[in-house]
Amino acid sequence: MNEKIVEDIINKVMNQLVNEAPTSLVDSKESIAIPVELSARHVHLSEQDAIALFGGPLTHVRELSQPGQFLCKERVRLIGPKGVIDNVAILGPSRDFSQVEISKTDARILGTETPVKHSGDIDGTPGIILASHKGIVGLEKGLIVAGRHIHMTPGEALKMGVSDKDLVSVHIDGDRPAILEDVCVRTNENFRLSMHIDLDEGNGAGWNKNVSGRIVGKHKETSRGLHIH
Amino acid sequence: MNEKIVEDIINKVMNQLVNEAPTSLVDSKESIAIPVELSARHVHLSEQDAIALFGGPLTHVRELSQPGQFLCKERVRLIGPKGVIDNVAILGPSRDFSQVEISKTDARILGTETPVKHSGDIDGTPGIILASHKGIVGLEKGLIVAGRHIHMTPGEALKMGVSDKDLVSVHIDGDRPAILEDVCVRTNENFRLSMHIDLDEGNGAGWNKNVSGRIVGKHKETSRGLHIH
Repeated sequence: MNEKIVEDIINKVMNQLVNEAPTSLVDSKESIAIPVELSARHVHLSEQDAIALFGGPLTHVRELSQPGQFLCKERVRLIGPKGVIDNVAILGPSRDFSQVEISKTDARILGTETPVKHSGDIDGTPGIILASHKGIVGLEKGLIVAGRHIHMTPGEALKMGVSDKDLVSVHIDGDRPAILEDVCVRTNENFRLSMHIDLDEGNGAGWNKNVSGRIVGKHKETSRGLHIH
Repeated sequence: MNEKIVEDIINKVMNQLVNEAPTSLVDSKESIAIPVELSARHVHLSEQDAIALFGGPLTHVRELSQPGQFLCKERVRLIGPKGVIDNVAILGPSRDFSQVEISKTDARILGTETPVKHSGDIDGTPGIILASHKGIVGLEKGLIVAGRHIHMTPGEALKMGVSDKDLVSVHIDGDRPAILEDVCVRTNENFRLSMHIDLDEGNGAGWNKNVSGRIVGKHKETSRGLHIH
């Protein structure tokens, strides 16, 4: 092996180490098992829409995994151009704008072209009709398939070498193992460590209650028009 | 940089190159774009079950992407302990044993615990009731969620550095990009290059008609009890 080859190899290795350093997490950072939860279809309502549908404030039933979030007693019907989905959960507290999160399977039932968007990014999304036994509300926008994401504290993010709004690849160890890309990291002191995927993603990865995710890579950016607020 | 470090780096690089050679396909073999097709729920019938349900042979409607396979005019109803799915496609030609391929979403509707299995591996799988307007058949086994797989010719396999029954990882470039692991390679001179995933996997990966897959790795074996015939 002559000196030129040695030099070339070293240059290549050094380049690779330098280039990979900020994105490779596997060796340099702890690989932490992230609990994976399935998000079933649900609705977030503005105060105004909650009143239009139910005549008053929503009724708290139980806390959800993320502190402050709760399931409401009230249920709502989604009415699309092709089909209807009944008995859809409402999550509180109320938000500035109503938002409806469904799966691609649901979108086929409703007959809507529904884009994958991160929560809050509802400009340009389709509308949908919400109905209760007391009222009806036509949303002009707010129907999305929620982008997969991970809730974590800033401390957990530091341990995993990631930051708020980073897009990461996560290995899911279900019956149908897969690496899901473009997973958005969200950090907040009040978050509980949890990855959220929808039912299609869960079924496609053979999810069960014991499944966990591990971050295996970090993307520089997404090219898929996902905006993160 | 002293000699010891140089030597260590070279050893590491050489080890890695040697270790990766048999499994890394990205550099050494052609990365071929594989068309990805969605498999909707469907039934394969034995001749006997076809007669019990329809009183005679099945009616050919149109060829499918794999040569020799065809869609039948007849449709069947699946009856599970919890729910019913109507208008399910039947694919010909008839097989030695009837087999029903559904998604995890369908399994929830029917109320059956349905394992992921490769086609033909139906020992120990649940049964299901099939009904038409002329007859009813109770299958004692044969209800599966089909394992994802790729059809290719032996020549294409050679180009991609894989063999029949290999399990590979495939990058899917949908709206929700992902690497699906445990994808089974099946080779036959008559096959047309195509990867088959089910609707849950397609929805979870943001599938559309232009999506393609690329083999990015090869597994030594699966630990998930998948048997390949």
